[in-house]
Amino acid sequence: MLFKVRPAAKEDCKEISRMILELAVFENMSDQVKITHEELERDGFGHNPFFECLVAEVPEENKSKEGFTVVGYGLYFYTYSTWKGRSVYLEDLYVMQEFRGKGIGKGLLSKVAEVGKKMQCVRLQLSVMDWNKPSRDFYAAKGAQDLTVSEGWHFLRFDGRDLDNLANEAPED
Amino acid sequence: MLFKVRPAAKEDCKEISRMILELAVFENMSDQVKITHEELERDGFGHNPFFECLVAEVPEENKSKEGFTVVGYGLYFYTYSTWKGRSVYLEDLYVMQEFRGKGIGKGLLSKVAEVGKKMQCVRLQLSVMDWNKPSRDFYAAKGAQDLTVSEGWHFLRFDGRDLDNLANEAPED
Repeated sequence: MLFKVRPAAKEDCKEISRMILELAVFENMSDQVKITHEELERDGFGHNPFFECLVAEVPEENKSKEGFTVVGYGLYFYTYSTWKGRSVYLEDLYVMQEFRGKGIGKGLLSKVAEVGKKMQCVRLQLSVMDWNKPSRDFYAAKGAQDLTVSEGWHFLRFDGRDLDNLANEAPED
Repeated sequence: MLFKVRPAAKEDCKEISRMILELAVFENMSDQVKITHEELERDGFGHNPFFECLVAEVPEENKSKEGFTVVGYGLYFYTYSTWKGRSVYLEDLYVMQEFRGKGIGKGLLSKVAEVGKKMQCVRLQLSVMDWNKPSRDFYAAKGAQDLTVSEGWHFLRFDGRDLDNLANEAPED
């Protein structure tokens, strides 16, 4: 199937928002999604954006059964290693179920790698959940190292009241 | 002990670079450090910086035995959750051994949380290695959740030839 991978425009945020929810449904976490397409527009398409996004698009004649032509996305941002320098982090990679197995996910992933290389990034990183074996196999087949297995990295988070408490205890300027 | 936490200036990059190496020595990984202070200056203090950094400074009369007054740093950048929005990621938190146990690490961490809240971030995230029990205890005591334990997140990486191969397979524009 023909498809095209292109940078998302502000006008794509409703479609991206729809797919963010579809991905969360797949992960059994749809109640966790608080983001709106207006927030995506503000945070990704203003001055100093917090993320960049690629979308995969199919021709009108191959549209989904619901009538969608934007059928996948890869949302990423730049991070930094104090050992190696610039890196790119792939937060979400998603292809609608109906369009899987056609190379679209690989196309999005490769394009993020290409964008990263152009920005002189030396690493492309991401996280997956251990129960998500299809994704883990997909990334492993393309050469990803699992640093949680090989080096014992754990991922920590402060949010809600714990984050507020920390911030409230910050020393004076 | 009196100390001050302040945003790093370009002129601090030599000191930050020194402490990056000290931290890598602690982690038995000093051969991994490829970054130079010139790269830190370029990537952190130009247009669209890849990271921000706070440094902890002590008064001249409390300088380290080698004569340093910049004795700790916290290097962070902004990331994005497609469920919750803006987040801040703490890449490195370091305090020179001689100055530990005086609240400086906590001061740096709290200040990053405060900066994040000002930027409307809803999460502060970071990674630690499983053998680094002092750090894991430090963060847990302040309310951090370990998502690798509670939700099974694994951290993946493409670099070197694997990243080149991916990028080379990107679809045409």
